[in-house]
Amino acid sequence: MRRTSFRDMNCSVAQCLEVVGEWWTMLIVRDLFMGVRRFDDFQERLGISRNVLTERLNKLVEQGIVDRRPYQERPTRHEYVLTEKGIGLWPVLNAMRQWGDEWEAPNGPRIDIVHRSCDHVTTGVIVCEHCRAEMGARDVRAVPGPGADATSPSPVPVRRT
Amino acid sequence: MRRTSFRDMNCSVAQCLEVVGEWWTMLIVRDLFMGVRRFDDFQERLGISRNVLTERLNKLVEQGIVDRRPYQERPTRHEYVLTEKGIGLWPVLNAMRQWGDEWEAPNGPRIDIVHRSCDHVTTGVIVCEHCRAEMGARDVRAVPGPGADATSPSPVPVRRT
Repeated sequence: MRRTSFRDMNCSVAQCLEVVGEWWTMLIVRDLFMGVRRFDDFQERLGISRNVLTERLNKLVEQGIVDRRPYQERPTRHEYVLTEKGIGLWPVLNAMRQWGDEWEAPNGPRIDIVHRSCDHVTTGVIVCEHCRAEMGARDVRAVPGPGADATSPSPVPVRRT
Repeated sequence: MRRTSFRDMNCSVAQCLEVVGEWWTMLIVRDLFMGVRRFDDFQERLGISRNVLTERLNKLVEQGIVDRRPYQERPTRHEYVLTEKGIGLWPVLNAMRQWGDEWEAPNGPRIDIVHRSCDHVTTGVIVCEHCRAEMGARDVRAVPGPGADATSPSPVPVRRT
């Protein structure tokens, strides 16, 4: 089935899906966060075909999420590192990991995260940037923002039945 | 191109991608969070074919993310609501929205989030559950967790070149 591009949707979730909704892409990003930089290492860890890996890495470079830079000459070889825009995906990755750990990890988390400054195994907790209280789905409501237009998703009143 | 299932990978990110990596699925989840419940409303908002929408909703029900329940008899009609497991996807959705707002929203956010208890437009900030300091990609390192096995992604030492 042909995929529709989300590019033209005026929705930030759709713009992010344009990146993370691609098969394999988020696992490449996961490995980049874990320090993998070289083509052969991605290939070995992911068990992905070289064609697909090349295509995904090229797309990540085009999207400004990954930098491709030479680390050797004759022959030239490249390594891949996250840009600031790529590093910005960490909260998405971390939220995905936490959800998987909570709902789909019968043997417990496969990866733990250690907070460098306090040196404890931790996980991320979301707080309101304004009042610093913990914040979840039930604590917020969506309202149209400054960038809203006719093609944006609009919050709907909750329907009572 | 056939997609590989991430089902057998011992990685929480892959398990979450099994859900959010499906085209359209996360936009359906987005609309569920915004209060959309009925088939025709999803269809109209997303501009998606009825076949694809039916398939995605059925998969979300199978995965335990959405409950399908009757709201009318003769003829029976159903509505769709998020389960607890589905509501658990909010941090993923919210992180995707924030990233899109930061990197792919030239006219500003399309949706703002209001924190009900303090009534301010807000966004989520991630803090360490232990020391409560703000925490980002550079503040953490990954270590193998209790559920790690030979098929799990392993953190690698950063390569110096």
